[in-house]
Amino acid sequence: MAGMTDTAPRAKDVRRIFAGFPQLAALGIVIDELSPGKARLTMPYSQQLVGDPGTGVMHGGAVSTLLDTCSGAAVACHPQANGPTATIDLRINYIRPAMPGQAITARAECHHVTRSFAFIRATAHDEDETLPVAEAVGTFTFDASPEVTS
Amino acid sequence: MAGMTDTAPRAKDVRRIFAGFPQLAALGIVIDELSPGKARLTMPYSQQLVGDPGTGVMHGGAVSTLLDTCSGAAVACHPQANGPTATIDLRINYIRPAMPGQAITARAECHHVTRSFAFIRATAHDEDETLPVAEAVGTFTFDASPEVTS
Amino acid sequence: MAGMTDTAPRAKDVRRIFAGFPQLAALGIVIDELSPGKARLTMPYSQQLVGDPGTGVMHGGAVSTLLDTCSGAAVACHPQANGPTATIDLRINYIRPAMPGQAITARAECHHVTRSFAFIRATAHDEDETLPVAEAVGTFTFDASPEVTS
Amino acid sequence: MAGMTDTAPRAKDVRRIFAGFPQLAALGIVIDELSPGKARLTMPYSQQLVGDPGTGVMHGGAVSTLLDTCSGAAVACHPQANGPTATIDLRINYIRPAMPGQAITARAECHHVTRSFAFIRATAHDEDETLPVAEAVGTFTFDASPEVTS
Repeated sequence: MAGMTDTAPRAKDVRRIFAGFPQLAALGIVIDELSPGKARLTMPYSQQLVGDPGTGVMHGGAVSTLLDTCSGAAVACHPQANGPTATIDLRINYIRPAMPGQAITARAECHHVTRSFAFIRATAHDEDETLPVAEAVGTFTFDASPEVTS
Repeated sequence: MAGMTDTAPRAKDVRRIFAGFPQLAALGIVIDELSPGKARLTMPYSQQLVGDPGTGVMHGGAVSTLLDTCSGAAVACHPQANGPTATIDLRINYIRPAMPGQAITARAECHHVTRSFAFIRATAHDEDETLPVAEAVGTFTFDASPEVTS
Repeated sequence: MAGMTDTAPRAKDVRRIFAGFPQLAALGIVIDELSPGKARLTMPYSQQLVGDPGTGVMHGGAVSTLLDTCSGAAVACHPQANGPTATIDLRINYIRPAMPGQAITARAECHHVTRSFAFIRATAHDEDETLPVAEAVGTFTFDASPEVTS
Repeated sequence: MAGMTDTAPRAKDVRRIFAGFPQLAALGIVIDELSPGKARLTMPYSQQLVGDPGTGVMHGGAVSTLLDTCSGAAVACHPQANGPTATIDLRINYIRPAMPGQAITARAECHHVTRSFAFIRATAHDEDETLPVAEAVGTFTFDASPEVTS
C-alpha cells in the first residue's frame, strides 16, 4: 500500500497536498516513499510525454518536472521544514536519454537546510540503475517549522 | 500566420520537427517566431499544468519544459548548428510565481557556439514584462552543419 | 578618482568593506563603479593568476572569484539590501579563454530581490567586448535593510 | 610520498602538468591522490585567501578554484579522456563557511563521459567531514584519447 514504508513525520500531509496537484496527475507521477529529508517518486512511461516521436524518448522537461517535484517533496519531509516549499533554482544535467517504454524513478535528498533555504540533490533512473538519466542540484525556500525542537 | 516573421534559415524544418513532439502538443506550446540563434515560444495557461490548486499557479516544471524547448529551438536556428540538438545541462532561476490565467512567453538566445556545444540564455514572462517569471542558462550539444560556410 | 561616479547609496561602505578583503588585494581586484544593484570590477592580468603556463591564460578560478565578488558587490549595492551578503550558489559558463596580457572586467547586476535572497547575473570580458570570457547567474542571501522604505 | 597511492593510468602526467600551474602554486593547492576518474586535492588555510578579515573565513572564490581544479584533475584521470580538459560550466553550492585555520580538501569524481564532454561532481570539506563547505556539479570538455579501446 502506498505510504506504508513512509518514515517522514509529515508524510501524510505531503501525500495529501501532492495528491491535489493537477500537473502531477497529468504526468502520472506517484510518490513511492517519504523519509526524513528524502523522497522517491516514479513517473510511468507515456506516449504523451515523448519529446521526439522518432526515438520515443521522454521529453527532458518531463524528467525535469519529476526531479523538481521529488526535490520539493524531500524538502517538505525534512524535519526542520514545514508548510509550503518553493524552488529558487535548479540545475539539471541530462546524462543520457531515458529508455523508451520504461518508467523513470527519481530519488531526492534535502542534505542541508539553513534558517531560510534548503539544498537538494536528486537523480533520475530508468530500469538501468548503473547510470542516471539525469541528476539535479538545487536550492529551495521553505517555511521554517516554529514548533520543531530538534 | 504562424511563421510569417521567421528569419532563421531552417525555420521551416524546425517548425515541422517540433510539430511532431507529443509533449509540446500536450502543453499547448506554440512557436511564435524563429530568427537566427533565437526563438520565441508561448504556452497558454491551462488547468492541467497547475502546480498548486490553492493558488492556480502553473507548475515550475511546465515553465522549465517551455524554457528547455525554446532554448533547443534557438540552438536549432543558429546558423552554425544543424540536425538534432540535445540539452547537456540547464539551470533555471524561479524568480516569481506566474500569474494564474496568463500565458507564458519564453525568449531564448543561443549567444555562442563552439565546435561541439552551444550556450543559451532564456527568460519566461507572463503578461507583466517588467519582471521575468523564470530565467535559464544552459549548455546544449548540436550536430555541426557541414555545409555551413560562414 | 575611484568612486567618483558611484551612484549606489551605500557605495562608500561597500568600498571600505571590500578594501579590507585580503583575497581581493591578492588578485589585484579594483572596484570601478557601484550603482544601485550594479557593480563593475576589474582584475589586472597577472603571471600569478595564470592557469596554464603554456598558453598564459588566466585560471578560470580567478575569473570565478572576480564574478563572485562583483556579484556580491552588486547585491550589497541594491537599495533593498543591507549588511553582509553571502553566495548561496553560482553557476558559471566559461565561454572562451581570456586573452593573455589583458585585464578582465566584470559587470554584475542584482536584477531581483525577495525578502531573503537576491538573484544576480554577471559577465566577464577582456578587451574584446563582443564576446564574454565567462558569464554567471547566482543566488545570494543578504540582510534586509530595516530602514529601507521603498 | 606524494603520488604513492595514485592508481590513475596518467597520474604522473597529470601531476607534472598541474605542477606547472602558477595559480595552483599561489593557492598552495596540493594533489593528494589520483585514481581513475577521481581526484583529491588539498588547499591549506592562508591569510592571503581570506575573504572577510572580520571572520577569517576563506573566500568562496578560493574554494571555487579548488573545486574547479580538482574536477579538472578527475576528468584528466578518466580512462576515456586524454590531453587538455576545459571547464564548460560549473555550479557551486556554498553550504557553510569554512572554519578559519583549517585546510580545505576537495574530492571530485568524473562520473560519466560522452564522446565530447564529461560530467563531474565534487565536494569540499574542512576538518569536519559531516557537512561539506561547498559542492559542485559541472560539465567539462576533454580530448578523447584515440588509443583507448574500452
